Amino acid sequence: MRILILGGDGFCGWPTSLHLSACGHEVGIVDNFARRNADVELEAQSLTPISPLGVRLETWRRLTGREIGFWRIDVAGAYHELLALLSEYRPDAVVHFAEQRAAPYSMKSAAHKRYTVDNNVNATHNLLCALVQGGLDCHVVHLGTMGVYGYGAAGAAPLPEGYLTVRMDGADGSEVEQEILYPASPGSVYHMTKTLDQLLFAFYNRNDEIRVTDLHQGIVWGTQTRETHQHERLINRFDYDGDYGTVLNRFLMQAAIGHPLTVHGTGGQTRAFIHIQDSVRAIQLAIEHPPQHGERVRIFNQMTETHRVIDLAHIVKKLTGADIDLVDNPRNEAPANDLAADNHQLLDLGLQPITLEDDLLTEITDIAQRYKDRCDPDKIPCTSRWITATRATAQSPAASIAAPA
Amino acid sequence: MRILILGGDGFCGWPTSLHLSACGHEVGIVDNFARRNADVELEAQSLTPISPLGVRLETWRRLTGREIGFWRIDVAGAYHELLALLSEYRPDAVVHFAEQRAAPYSMKSAAHKRYTVDNNVNATHNLLCALVQGGLDCHVVHLGTMGVYGYGAAGAAPLPEGYLTVRMDGADGSEVEQEILYPASPGSVYHMTKTLDQLLFAFYNRNDEIRVTDLHQGIVWGTQTRETHQHERLINRFDYDGDYGTVLNRFLMQAAIGHPLTVHGTGGQTRAFIHIQDSVRAIQLAIEHPPQHGERVRIFNQMTETHRVIDLAHIVKKLTGADIDLVDNPRNEAPANDLAADNHQLLDLGLQPITLEDDLLTEITDIAQRYKDRCDPDKIPCTSRWITATRATAQSPAASIAAPA
Repeated sequence: MRILILGGDGFCGWPTSLHLSACGHEVGIVDNFARRNADVELEAQSLTPISPLGVRLETWRRLTGREIGFWRIDVAGAYHELLALLSEYRPDAVVHFAEQRAAPYSMKSAAHKRYTVDNNVNATHNLLCALVQGGLDCHVVHLGTMGVYGYGAAGAAPLPEGYLTVRMDGADGSEVEQEILYPASPGSVYHMTKTLDQLLFAFYNRNDEIRVTDLHQGIVWGTQTRETHQHERLINRFDYDGDYGTVLNRFLMQAAIGHPLTVHGTGGQTRAFIHIQDSVRAIQLAIEHPPQHGERVRIFNQMTETHRVIDLAHIVKKLTGADIDLVDNPRNEAPANDLAADNHQLLDLGLQPITLEDDLLTEITDIAQRYKDRCDPDKIPCTSRWITATRATAQSPAASIAAPA
Repeated sequence: MRILILGGDGFCGWPTSLHLSACGHEVGIVDNFARRNADVELEAQSLTPISPLGVRLETWRRLTGREIGFWRIDVAGAYHELLALLSEYRPDAVVHFAEQRAAPYSMKSAAHKRYTVDNNVNATHNLLCALVQGGLDCHVVHLGTMGVYGYGAAGAAPLPEGYLTVRMDGADGSEVEQEILYPASPGSVYHMTKTLDQLLFAFYNRNDEIRVTDLHQGIVWGTQTRETHQHERLINRFDYDGDYGTVLNRFLMQAAIGHPLTVHGTGGQTRAFIHIQDSVRAIQLAIEHPPQHGERVRIFNQMTETHRVIDLAHIVKKLTGADIDLVDNPRNEAPANDLAADNHQLLDLGLQPITLEDDLLTEITDIAQRYKDRCDPDKIPCTSRWITATRATAQSPAASIAAPA
């Protein structure tokens, strides 16, 4: 198949591009280097030494003989360039990663909130508009997030894959049943943009029959895939900073440099996880099993296991001897939650999950230990606050809003 | 109260500004003249001769001694100007009309779709961000649309005011009840933007306790209010063109010039209506009865009656002798639908509806007949198509997509 990867230089986009290329698909990358530019802005960088995209692509070509094309286009800003490329390339599938993807980054300031909404909504909408305007029959595979669901109604069944069957009172007193998009309950501006995306997809699917698979992904852990592992110049990003680092990566790096594991609040939050290798495989499965024409938006929960944050900390502590430090939670969220979710659709397509147990030690030794000298400990604290200092103080005079030391 | 009206020069914004000023509130208008610019683009104009905003404001001042301030700011594009104004003016309430509000306009082309999404989402989000950044305790009153609901589940009870009580299966086999935002089902890109607004409001209400009243308005009919009626230089817009003209206005103007009443499809669509006088009164009631701090987004259905489009056509035919012409429906919608909706909250606050029966003749004589010589009949057809010619033909080879003659 011919596949375009929007955001193909990022943490999920790069290993996905290589994996699909290795599978024999014709792959092209579109990226505006927004993620590398955020490194410059935040004065943070990947723990792993990532190569420039040109070097990455040339290394892959020499190793495998496979060419991956590249177009530097801002999907949210340069509509006509995007339309021209889509019309020329005529992809069978577009994988859409071209969104700002960090919750703390999206909450840093008004400017970051506005950038996240403007970029993410316009990127998704430009893609959908361009497919309609170009008259292209192309499957859109989008990275959503488990965070669109919130954590469900108290006592409700495990989170379904996108759609929920509900019953309501009918006009004549009888009961009416309907299947609806799961009610949105996003926990940050970033997560909110993915709930906006869902409504964009639903509309263009219904009005223009655009075929869409929306992958509600859990927190990705792990760094390398079979392909990125083949040469150091292909290595994937590993973010540990307070904005872009996800919880497990941050624990691993903290352990490697002897920093206590910073658990927000009580660590009672339960989250869904998936290994990056499973993530790229799931995207391949979604692409190779597209929805039918006229089928509604297909939604998969792209996650393989759930863990409480404090339990993860204890697993890492056990493997590394690190201390655990409970710090104020910068997020505006429940101190603890349960989480169970259905994920049978990807398992039915053949996904065989890599569990934390299988691969955590590799991450510790091959990534965190190996590159620990590149770490800047000043970048560890999460400095974004979900609610402003004024209001946090007004709510609870005793609440400390200082960053963890 | 101190009130800022974003979009205060438009069809709803202008009479709202005058009405609130007449009620003794301190009123300021923010507008970027997007609606007047659309007239230039479409080579269409209001049937009624509207004065420049400066003339309008000066006329009002001379008539009543009341000053209304004006700031020319693009709410979606000039965030820092908006923030500075809000911080300086410190309004008790902001009425947010600063959105592209025509469904056919939003479907004209990719450029119009993109403008509508970009403008409406960023306008709403900029306002919310600015209130948080400025630390302002201000009630946001937003014009939504009944179109966020679609037409409900078959057999379901009348559309509730924003929130729906649903029952679902629980984890332990028992039934769980939850109140959710009514599932979105927008019929155009324009309507879709209002469903995106709902998620923005829900998030900022929950995370930052921004107080919001979202008024899901039906189709507005009528032109004049008690205030706009006081001088011809205060007259309100009356749009009859295929993009901005709403169905009843179009019928009245068509009847006045001897054009057949153009009914889309069978006219079996049922729609909700409200007179412009009731609309401005409802906004006043919403402002003067703000939600409590910590209260969730308050949603009112701002409509007073429902009618089938074909029935409206017959009412106008009876009053004027006009013919009825069934033309192809440019919209992608069901040929017929029922519609019943709850609207008790505004009635409870004291709204006393003006019905079609009360005032339709005034519209015919004082507006449509009086200004009919200003009509350009070429602007009557709706040229926007909800689905592209290619797909319409593919779906149904016999379908004609020509504009009505």
